[in-house]
Amino acid sequence: MSGSKQNVESASTCYAASFDKGHLALPPSKKYLVLTCMDARIDPAQAFGIELGDAHVIRNAGASAVDALRSIIISQQLLGTDEIVLVKHTGCGMLTFENADAYQIVRKKLGQAATEELHERKLDFLPFPELERAVAEDVDFLKRSQLVPDSVALSGWVYEVETGQTRRVV
Amino acid sequence: MSGSKQNVESASTCYAASFDKGHLALPPSKKYLVLTCMDARIDPAQAFGIELGDAHVIRNAGASAVDALRSIIISQQLLGTDEIVLVKHTGCGMLTFENADAYQIVRKKLGQAATEELHERKLDFLPFPELERAVAEDVDFLKRSQLVPDSVALSGWVYEVETGQTRRVV
Repeated sequence: MSGSKQNVESASTCYAASFDKGHLALPPSKKYLVLTCMDARIDPAQAFGIELGDAHVIRNAGASAVDALRSIIISQQLLGTDEIVLVKHTGCGMLTFENADAYQIVRKKLGQAATEELHERKLDFLPFPELERAVAEDVDFLKRSQLVPDSVALSGWVYEVETGQTRRVV
Repeated sequence: MSGSKQNVESASTCYAASFDKGHLALPPSKKYLVLTCMDARIDPAQAFGIELGDAHVIRNAGASAVDALRSIIISQQLLGTDEIVLVKHTGCGMLTFENADAYQIVRKKLGQAATEELHERKLDFLPFPELERAVAEDVDFLKRSQLVPDSVALSGWVYEVETGQTRRVV
């Protein structure tokens, strides 16, 4: 087994030994969801103050609201959350390329069949050129979607990977 | 401001005060990614032993590999990860409904315009009826995709929300 798999097993043994949260209910007790980036430098529980059981945490490349829509609807309509805290971050990889670049990298590294699969899936990598504008645009997308009712509270934030601070943008 | 927003601000002040990881690089240092569910009862860093900077963490409703494909390609082809640790969990909400149920709930709660938006987006909620089979099927989807090269190590796990343990399935 590779290092990361052994890692999961040893961490799990240790975590389970002192685990006392087996009673928590499925719906998040604080009825909110955090949408943030998959970036390795973000620990949402610590950085945003989320206790186990409090909130849904959705993570994808760039904290894209469009990409997260399926999960957001399930969180709200099936599991009762009514607030979205959207957090993008400084130094995000999504600021560094455009769709055409990603398509070219896939073609070069993975070849023709992979490129065809990309096209078949009409895959949009959803990069963005400007951080704070991207936060505002994603919050706006959620506001405009019929699938996110007006009663849902929305806020947009930037986490600074350099300082560990999170500041509100919208 | 609502409670969760104050929460982010106070947690952030506290976290930043003792933050000393501003030097971490963008690419995950251990070159792997963890794909797990948005469920509020999972803390991936603690439960799966992920140190800050180690790994990408993708989270969506049900830990769906199909839904995560965009992020997975970015993680691997642009940021150099070469292993996927996929973790679904006991008591997952995705085991409790079918697409038709979700469509009906949206129609009832959000009305006709929202339902039309669901149809326009051809939204598949990606629920699954059986946990361990779903883990195996998602790992198989990744194996078969041209967009995930054979050199990528894959494993599938189940996290038990009742015990805090993570066990390997495939």
